[in-house]
Amino acid sequence: MKIKNLLTIVLVVLAYSYSVAQDNLVQYVNPLIGTHKMGHTYPGATVPFGMVQLSPETDTIPYEADDHYNPLVYKYCAGYQYDDPTIVGFTHTHFSGTGHSDLGDFLIMPSVGKLQLNPGTEQNPKSGFRSAFSHSNEKAEANYYRVKLDDDNIVAELTATNRVGFHQYTFPQADQAHIILDLMYGIYNHAGKNIWTFVRVENDTLVTGYRQTNGWARTRTVYFAMTFSKPIKQYGMKDFSKPDVYKGFWRKFDQTKNFPDIAGEQIRMYFDFQTQEGEKVKIKFALSSVSTKGALENLQTELPHWDFEKAKHDGQQQWQKELQRIRVKASDKNDLINFYTALYHTFLGPTTYMDVTGAYRGLDQNNHQAAGFTNYTTFSLWDTYRALHPLFNVIQPKRNSDMVNSMLAHYDQSVHKMLPVWSHHANENWCMIGYHSVSVISDAIIKGNFQGDAYQALDACVATARHKSYDGLEYYIQSGYVPEDKSGSSVSKTLEYAYDDWCIAQVAKKLNKQAIYDEFTKRSQNWRNVYDASTGYMRPKLSDGKFRKEFDVLSTHGQGYIEGNAWNYSLYVPQDPEQMIALMGGKKRFVQHLDSLFTMNLPDEFFAHTEDITREGIIGNYVHGNEPAHHAAYLYNWTDQPWKTQERVRMILQKQYHATPDGLGGNDDCGQMSAWYIFTSLGFYPVAPGSDQYALGSPAIQSAVLPLENGKTFEIEAINQSKKNVYVQKVTLNDKLLTRPFLTHDEIVKGGKLVFYMSAKPKR
Amino acid sequence: MKIKNLLTIVLVVLAYSYSVAQDNLVQYVNPLIGTHKMGHTYPGATVPFGMVQLSPETDTIPYEADDHYNPLVYKYCAGYQYDDPTIVGFTHTHFSGTGHSDLGDFLIMPSVGKLQLNPGTEQNPKSGFRSAFSHSNEKAEANYYRVKLDDDNIVAELTATNRVGFHQYTFPQADQAHIILDLMYGIYNHAGKNIWTFVRVENDTLVTGYRQTNGWARTRTVYFAMTFSKPIKQYGMKDFSKPDVYKGFWRKFDQTKNFPDIAGEQIRMYFDFQTQEGEKVKIKFALSSVSTKGALENLQTELPHWDFEKAKHDGQQQWQKELQRIRVKASDKNDLINFYTALYHTFLGPTTYMDVTGAYRGLDQNNHQAAGFTNYTTFSLWDTYRALHPLFNVIQPKRNSDMVNSMLAHYDQSVHKMLPVWSHHANENWCMIGYHSVSVISDAIIKGNFQGDAYQALDACVATARHKSYDGLEYYIQSGYVPEDKSGSSVSKTLEYAYDDWCIAQVAKKLNKQAIYDEFTKRSQNWRNVYDASTGYMRPKLSDGKFRKEFDVLSTHGQGYIEGNAWNYSLYVPQDPEQMIALMGGKKRFVQHLDSLFTMNLPDEFFAHTEDITREGIIGNYVHGNEPAHHAAYLYNWTDQPWKTQERVRMILQKQYHATPDGLGGNDDCGQMSAWYIFTSLGFYPVAPGSDQYALGSPAIQSAVLPLENGKTFEIEAINQSKKNVYVQKVTLNDKLLTRPFLTHDEIVKGGKLVFYMSAKPKR
Repeated sequence: MKIKNLLTIVLVVLAYSYSVAQDNLVQYVNPLIGTHKMGHTYPGATVPFGMVQLSPETDTIPYEADDHYNPLVYKYCAGYQYDDPTIVGFTHTHFSGTGHSDLGDFLIMPSVGKLQLNPGTEQNPKSGFRSAFSHSNEKAEANYYRVKLDDDNIVAELTATNRVGFHQYTFPQADQAHIILDLMYGIYNHAGKNIWTFVRVENDTLVTGYRQTNGWARTRTVYFAMTFSKPIKQYGMKDFSKPDVYKGFWRKFDQTKNFPDIAGEQIRMYFDFQTQEGEKVKIKFALSSVSTKGALENLQTELPHWDFEKAKHDGQQQWQKELQRIRVKASDKNDLINFYTALYHTFLGPTTYMDVTGAYRGLDQNNHQAAGFTNYTTFSLWDTYRALHPLFNVIQPKRNSDMVNSMLAHYDQSVHKMLPVWSHHANENWCMIGYHSVSVISDAIIKGNFQGDAYQALDACVATARHKSYDGLEYYIQSGYVPEDKSGSSVSKTLEYAYDDWCIAQVAKKLNKQAIYDEFTKRSQNWRNVYDASTGYMRPKLSDGKFRKEFDVLSTHGQGYIEGNAWNYSLYVPQDPEQMIALMGGKKRFVQHLDSLFTMNLPDEFFAHTEDITREGIIGNYVHGNEPAHHAAYLYNWTDQPWKTQERVRMILQKQYHATPDGLGGNDDCGQMSAWYIFTSLGFYPVAPGSDQYALGSPAIQSAVLPLENGKTFEIEAINQSKKNVYVQKVTLNDKLLTRPFLTHDEIVKGGKLVFYMSAKPKR
Repeated sequence: MKIKNLLTIVLVVLAYSYSVAQDNLVQYVNPLIGTHKMGHTYPGATVPFGMVQLSPETDTIPYEADDHYNPLVYKYCAGYQYDDPTIVGFTHTHFSGTGHSDLGDFLIMPSVGKLQLNPGTEQNPKSGFRSAFSHSNEKAEANYYRVKLDDDNIVAELTATNRVGFHQYTFPQADQAHIILDLMYGIYNHAGKNIWTFVRVENDTLVTGYRQTNGWARTRTVYFAMTFSKPIKQYGMKDFSKPDVYKGFWRKFDQTKNFPDIAGEQIRMYFDFQTQEGEKVKIKFALSSVSTKGALENLQTELPHWDFEKAKHDGQQQWQKELQRIRVKASDKNDLINFYTALYHTFLGPTTYMDVTGAYRGLDQNNHQAAGFTNYTTFSLWDTYRALHPLFNVIQPKRNSDMVNSMLAHYDQSVHKMLPVWSHHANENWCMIGYHSVSVISDAIIKGNFQGDAYQALDACVATARHKSYDGLEYYIQSGYVPEDKSGSSVSKTLEYAYDDWCIAQVAKKLNKQAIYDEFTKRSQNWRNVYDASTGYMRPKLSDGKFRKEFDVLSTHGQGYIEGNAWNYSLYVPQDPEQMIALMGGKKRFVQHLDSLFTMNLPDEFFAHTEDITREGIIGNYVHGNEPAHHAAYLYNWTDQPWKTQERVRMILQKQYHATPDGLGGNDDCGQMSAWYIFTSLGFYPVAPGSDQYALGSPAIQSAVLPLENGKTFEIEAINQSKKNVYVQKVTLNDKLLTRPFLTHDEIVKGGKLVFYMSAKPKR
């Protein structure tokens, strides 16, 4: 190493350390944002990209319910709804911001007095182990959650390491103090979901076991090791299983009391203690995808002590370190709260999915060893390819490369030989459409961040894109579009496949694979095949080559789109807006289309059936609460009126993100909505991941410093910034005028300074 | 090594090799013996102690049935009943001779013509995939089974390696030839038994997956890897699961046809081929307790070729090698068939339970590595401690030591910290009574065969015997007997605990653990506490210290005994017959008791409810079909009339063992009945395993040569042997007169020659 390089590193490290001391960013994180209504975030404790998400549950659908489309499935995706009056308990796994649900493993609930092994009702929490609570006694921070459980006057506190949840319960004096371990509870706990439960009380402070479910993840097993700070006085269980669970010679034993070996479909356990007034009973609860042995190793390695405050502090230090990847200044504290909570939300996933030893359960249900990378899970790719992974390519390139390696491991383990579509916990759940893994992979390779074999990665992309039995791809490959009569949401599929194909072509080009480049460049033009010049919209086509007659350009149901309508989806050619605009009648007509999108006045009931969003998630006919048009406001950059991009994005920031529990207008979608916020606040956005370009917008912060992983620093400044000064008069990069409304990735990673000169008047 | 020793070894090896060439012992094995009525043996293919037992199924209870006590549970313990007219298919795992049931994993059935995915009925086999067959087209050998399936004119042939089943199906010409893989089928397939199934069609010749059940083994998973000799033309499945199996976004796909990724509760699959007349389609089907990866490794390591004849030959060579551990001469071919089939049955289990890599699933459901031993499973200990493990201590000492190590691994993995009671496939099923692991461990240690830490083994025995919450032990420890009002079968438990305790004391003595010796010697006297001098029987006592008033000395139900009555169980003090006889009124009165036992005339209906045996399993009131009195006929040796032992045991051999499918009078009980046959035929029997003594009886063979593992040879000769000459006039050991009716283990393992001089007249 040259002295000069060493010096640079030392200086960067010093600067970095200095800023840690100076600026407590954790204070701006409010995990309660998004917990009311549609945000579907959870308020509990977790570390960045942590395997454990330890968070309160306010309700779920009862496990007896057999309706897979119960509306509560949707409402309780994150287990917690801010306006609920009771808490059922605290579980260890949660999605952040999804629109479908699973997880909620291993519910823990403290109680005193007569033992109750049913949760009780919201209306009458004292009829069961759940408890009333109030927000005045609730506190949520990054990696810390506290609430007073009113029914039994117990204070619950939660914190976590990567793989271990740490509970601290402050009890009143009680002869009968209980810790309930509910192994039947789960988020979206439909009939038949719980497949099997296995528990061992290893000694008077250690319990191990697993829970196996058939839900959104079809075959999922979570192993645990749980340890108490104080010996169990006695314990027991109730088996709520159907009578067909085999008992056999186990009838020899009374399995309900102090019997250490338990298995069944539906089990609730209790552990009894005697407590003094104010006594703290602590629980460390470790997870593993591999085995109870793995969970125990995770526990012993990550959390060898019982110091709750230290664990909380250590986790918050991790948050501080991660949040410092962007240090912003803003005029309004709410902007800082929105910004750092959004950044917090982007760092909640994908989540770590391996033991401290590197072992993890793979898609093939075998155990694997992650060689040279951290294995991650929960890839909500239809959402996150748009801005979350591109954001990671700027501020988390190492992790993003590991995420790509995790996706490639999934491919290796896939019997379909496909990259993940929507995957979590060693399962493909096939949610949504497209094969957007290829976008994430392409973006990482094009931007030079992927540490691995790019040729293998390209092979995986190509194999996935050629997989004929997948979701209309056979017809798409054959005819250049997905016929609506063969495969629903056909327009969305055709457009997204075409974009994904373009991504593959970009990698092929970089790797000099001409034949693949040609094949996928041709396929990337397929968006043209669903454009209907007679109406000016992308429109569903039938297998006879004719457009379907029935055509409702506003409806989002049965029209050939998914989570969008013709207005929004017709804009979806991110790989080539210029050609799209040309085909749609040129820039002038296109601006009219965009203007109408943002300003048309639609009756409330029209969007009542639009999925995943509140009325506030919609601006005109533009649906920010869903993803397909997330790039739309930036398309003015390809017309003569980029100032409208600046105006729209500032309006969206203002209308769609609030520093309140109901502050998110739609599902956060595993960080995609938050990533949009971060990029847009900084003044640029990746319209087409897989290209090296970012479209410029209008920054909402005053300044930002990004200490990059390569040691360089990228700075952004917005001169004359204010709520009204949303228009950009000029932009300089390293003091040179930027004459295009675009920034390249290279320009960021080289380090430098981007300055926006703001004004209240558009530059026409 | 001294030249002399080397020479001895060379000579032994030469002699051994010579006899291999000379004497085909496999020809005497008839696996059909015991397949009719109560024997519960299976006729299929397996290697000695093999993990795979590939055998035909003639019926089972349907999976819809929810009666855990369905009589068919009992009838179909081994899947096959000789008098059934149809075969449903061939499965890979079977118990040999049990009285309760489980296993029957992965049913394979070939068919042609219209695809049928239901098994059909016995009355109308053509209504499903099952087929009629006749015994004239059936052939069963050690490691080979063949049958013609009449319905579709398919010849099925089966053979196996340790971990791989090898199927060969000779088809007629067929455009539609099918191989059914029924993953719902199982032996004792009660409602709720199938927990989960997972299958991947990896490519056009390889299928992997697993089956998870909740049955006699509470939490059992079997993994497989299956490969075809010919590429699959097409394949598919039908899901018979209840509707509550979650489908979600998997609905995108038609999972019923050529979809490679299948999971659910109740699955049947089919694989289609086109066949020429006489074409052989072969399947190699490997198992693992660890993973599909492990199953695939087992397959590739053990059976890399497709030569069915070679696999069959290799397996039969293994049988030849094992059967040569006793080379007998007999006057009657049927005696040789009975002898070598019995020896075959003793070598069917415990079965190998680890992958070729040494990995296996443990009782704690974690994967473990067997360090320095072969891990075995299926310990039917209440049966096999009596004669099977003692037999292994003579002719399979290395394996028996590994079995003890397997039991100690079970102990290490047990959350109860108990040795196995009745264990199989990584599960304790708690069947029957006692803690007879300690007998097996004690016998191995006392006889000098255990390779391991005897002190640790003793600790495991002691911990098990002190486990208060187990089956009345708390009362036994406290009061010296199990009170019938606290824990049923109390007399049997008290007697067997006392014997087990004596075993522990013997080990403690050998290891100079005086306190343990004293404690367990005292406990071993507890049999005295249930002896009722007023009736002369062992009798149930209540917790108030008084004998229960109601007392039926003949009934086997509700009388304080299990699988026995007062007549039989009153003889159960194997550790001290002398004292027992004294307490029962002395030798004369005792001989009367024994004589009555064997000669009393009981009405048929009296034993109609005796478990596990046919009418033929009973001689007088002596029940040979169950185990508790297996030592009884040898007890005359402790009286003045040992000639009655000689007479009785020859009668039992003759009456209870026949070279026919219905030739076993009771369940073979994992080899215990057969081990009794082997010992008794050789002329001695281990009345009290844990001692080094064998009681002499009356040999039924003409001569026997036992080439021992230590390089020595032990020979037995019966001079003047015949069916009538059942009485022993004198016995010499190495040409010296043996003046006691006992032989010691040392006398066997030192090598030498035991000669019985037979006569038609008793030596009074």
